Amino acid sequence: MLVIMNRGASEAQISAVVEKIRAAGLTEHLSKGVERTIIGAIGEERKLEPEAFELLPGVEQALHIVKQYKIVAREWHPQDSVVDIRGIPLGGNSVQIIAGPCSVETQEQMDLAAAGVAAAGCRLMRGGAFKPRTSPYAFQGLGSKGLEYFRHAADKHNLPIVTELMDVRMLETFLEWDVDVIQIGTRNMQNFDLLKEVGRVNKPVILKRGMSATISEWLMAAEYIAAGGNHNIIFCERGVRSFETAYRNMLDVTAIPVLKRET
Amino acid sequence: MLVIMNRGASEAQISAVVEKIRAAGLTEHLSKGVERTIIGAIGEERKLEPEAFELLPGVEQALHIVKQYKIVAREWHPQDSVVDIRGIPLGGNSVQIIAGPCSVETQEQMDLAAAGVAAAGCRLMRGGAFKPRTSPYAFQGLGSKGLEYFRHAADKHNLPIVTELMDVRMLETFLEWDVDVIQIGTRNMQNFDLLKEVGRVNKPVILKRGMSATISEWLMAAEYIAAGGNHNIIFCERGVRSFETAYRNMLDVTAIPVLKRET
Amino acid sequence: MLVIMNRGASEAQISAVVEKIRAAGLTEHLSKGVERTIIGAIGEERKLEPEAFELLPGVEQALHIVKQYKIVAREWHPQDSVVDIRGIPLGGNSVQIIAGPCSVETQEQMDLAAAGVAAAGCRLMRGGAFKPRTSPYAFQGLGSKGLEYFRHAADKHNLPIVTELMDVRMLETFLEWDVDVIQIGTRNMQNFDLLKEVGRVNKPVILKRGMSATISEWLMAAEYIAAGGNHNIIFCERGVRSFETAYRNMLDVTAIPVLKRET
Amino acid sequence: MLVIMNRGASEAQISAVVEKIRAAGLTEHLSKGVERTIIGAIGEERKLEPEAFELLPGVEQALHIVKQYKIVAREWHPQDSVVDIRGIPLGGNSVQIIAGPCSVETQEQMDLAAAGVAAAGCRLMRGGAFKPRTSPYAFQGLGSKGLEYFRHAADKHNLPIVTELMDVRMLETFLEWDVDVIQIGTRNMQNFDLLKEVGRVNKPVILKRGMSATISEWLMAAEYIAAGGNHNIIFCERGVRSFETAYRNMLDVTAIPVLKRET
Repeated sequence: MLVIMNRGASEAQISAVVEKIRAAGLTEHLSKGVERTIIGAIGEERKLEPEAFELLPGVEQALHIVKQYKIVAREWHPQDSVVDIRGIPLGGNSVQIIAGPCSVETQEQMDLAAAGVAAAGCRLMRGGAFKPRTSPYAFQGLGSKGLEYFRHAADKHNLPIVTELMDVRMLETFLEWDVDVIQIGTRNMQNFDLLKEVGRVNKPVILKRGMSATISEWLMAAEYIAAGGNHNIIFCERGVRSFETAYRNMLDVTAIPVLKRET
Repeated sequence: MLVIMNRGASEAQISAVVEKIRAAGLTEHLSKGVERTIIGAIGEERKLEPEAFELLPGVEQALHIVKQYKIVAREWHPQDSVVDIRGIPLGGNSVQIIAGPCSVETQEQMDLAAAGVAAAGCRLMRGGAFKPRTSPYAFQGLGSKGLEYFRHAADKHNLPIVTELMDVRMLETFLEWDVDVIQIGTRNMQNFDLLKEVGRVNKPVILKRGMSATISEWLMAAEYIAAGGNHNIIFCERGVRSFETAYRNMLDVTAIPVLKRET
Repeated sequence: MLVIMNRGASEAQISAVVEKIRAAGLTEHLSKGVERTIIGAIGEERKLEPEAFELLPGVEQALHIVKQYKIVAREWHPQDSVVDIRGIPLGGNSVQIIAGPCSVETQEQMDLAAAGVAAAGCRLMRGGAFKPRTSPYAFQGLGSKGLEYFRHAADKHNLPIVTELMDVRMLETFLEWDVDVIQIGTRNMQNFDLLKEVGRVNKPVILKRGMSATISEWLMAAEYIAAGGNHNIIFCERGVRSFETAYRNMLDVTAIPVLKRET
Repeated sequence: MLVIMNRGASEAQISAVVEKIRAAGLTEHLSKGVERTIIGAIGEERKLEPEAFELLPGVEQALHIVKQYKIVAREWHPQDSVVDIRGIPLGGNSVQIIAGPCSVETQEQMDLAAAGVAAAGCRLMRGGAFKPRTSPYAFQGLGSKGLEYFRHAADKHNLPIVTELMDVRMLETFLEWDVDVIQIGTRNMQNFDLLKEVGRVNKPVILKRGMSATISEWLMAAEYIAAGGNHNIIFCERGVRSFETAYRNMLDVTAIPVLKRET
């Protein structure tokens, strides 16, 4: 971490920063420029919080140098990640299309949809049994009954199923229906208790980007899942919120190469 | 709802829209302009979804005219809302300051903090026992033990306590420690299962605005709580995400008069 | 234009809106819903300003139905636009890459660059003689001398030149050096006097999107150029401003199909 | 400036950065952490551009430590700024309200408006003779004739006049009508040639914040004016662009204390 002192910060203020760094078990490195003194903290800096330093008198800014994510970082596993979903690879050189309806509605609908998905050559199917809806008056999904319809329909074509988990109390039910890929929606990207729980199961997780999440926050959300032991994480860029009103979301394509480089 | 047809939409396309409106039990009202035909849907339009109409051929745009929120709307309760917290009014002409530390750490810390809060004349106290942290490696809060410290410290000064609920499975524990005001954090503003649960209890709820939530989405999140029967909702504008890097959040003061007008 | 009245708007308030519509030479069309009255303005609505209606008592919202852009709209010229630059087509099925250095620095640099651009198979060259720099202390470009170096270097390879015009007083100089394509930078997208001037010359214009311009504002900026008689307009999506700090701009790829549909 | 090297940057890569720093006349300061090497550039770092360093192999990030603005920075003139407008102070402990119509339309309108402004106790008047309009088909203002009406109306009440300058070619006319305060609109905040010109005259300038300008860009725009010799700069926070659709702009109140601290 770097702590940048104000122009004219006193020796006492610099010492206070140094002491705080030492108290956390790291060592300091001072650099006095023409206008500013900069203090580097050397050691395991992930423990330090910049905000705690910015409260000290004489500090202008404190910033992490080392990235906060670790398990998900490519620095720690240089090879490309490929997630295996019942024999189907996601990642690497193949591209998979996951198709299916927004909501599960009836058994007939799902049977027709599954036949269509298989006929089109897709190898994975999606459908929502639990729907995150802006309005409490809109259809909230069929719930467990929807998982049942979905499972039956997909099994006829041997399609792994992908569906959204919103409530931690439903995880057991997801495992009972053997949901193949658990989707975490944009509104739950920082629902940390949900992330911790899916981090403990042995199922691939699709982590959708939060509506206005930075790449760094997104990677840290993935780190919650990875820290629990589940390293089968699939990032889904679904567009972010912007000032533009001509479309609901702005697809951030730049995120893709950045994620490829970072993870 | 209004459905705006493309320039040159055919009679058949217009009829299809009209039929869909009638199928939902509403009636239509056509208005033919020089360049566009506009179709109004008259009746309980909250049932209709603009997206479903925008998929029809010949439709340029569909938009709600009536607001989607209902219970929380001032249209339905013209008087100002005042939430009573153990005899302390929140809303109306009085202003309450809720003070306390970010995190609950020790009994001693909380005793000192409570004494300070009371001495400063504040009538409500806050403190976090469950902390939503970007990093899984950062301190996640003391949990139930933190509620205990908090309750004991606040009780000596008769201060109602305000604390954040992140996980629906902890609600029971919150009720056991008789948390006076339940706070829903910015990352959970659209955690709909959590909203539904706090909608069922008889405790005031502070609903913080999502990091990039529109006023309308915020009100709809409140509507989830209200629809469960809990009308004691306190909105907390905490700043939104923006392009500016000089500060972490941009306080949206304009939201305050808009909320006062709308709710 | 549509004017949506408040719930409970009085007959007098409705009449005032109707009168204002008639005063502008249009006719009104009333639609009374269960909760709201909506008034349509029929005729040449581009003359009306929604803001002027939103000031009237009882009005909740006023919005344009017809798009504000006209000459640049595909509605008025259904075929794809192809801009001819000294025989090189831009648009249609061919893709052109415009290459060259950020800044013109010396004759030698430009000679080398032009040779490289031609060798790589590019058919157009770019380079900045006037540089829009955030800081007044940064290099502002060589000015007219830069145009001279650029012209000489490009001519040896018969490459049309593309360069940015920032100041309306320099247009004459651009014409003297026979700049083939005039670029309007992101900071000048709504420099309306500059747009009007390049609308009067017979040179293709590259109009870069403003840093946080909506598609609609961008098209209206193009309309300024088109209204002057110059229809050779090339849109350049260069990324917009966002909350993300991992990259300077967020490339808005969705803008491309939307522009193709609209223009 | 700080240059943060990648994990595993080679000695040769570090040397290349050091050489580039020395070539610019500054000296380097190395700090080797557990995971990263950081190189500080000591000396007049405003000359260096982070982008130029980020292109070098092995560099992860380069950032300025010293602020880029200088003349406008409070560091260089610790006392509060007060702008004198024909004897009326703007800044310090008094608050001035500048009132008047959006557009100048007729002499009668301006006479009435000026009388109203004076009667209300305002000491400055505003009105637009040149109007930046999104649409080329909307009223563009009366131009010089508008300045004439404005000047005559305001003079009867001894009110200094404030009006927007859009086109550098109109500055002479502004001086002829002795406009007291020149306003630079949000769309022209980075019209650098315009900023340079108003930097050369002896008239106070109101610099409106760009629609999505950061505080730092805004200050650098002011630095353009200041660098020309004109230090009478008034910042106008007018709201920024956001994702919220309930209002046109989001007033950024946090900008005010930040500007007070910085300038």
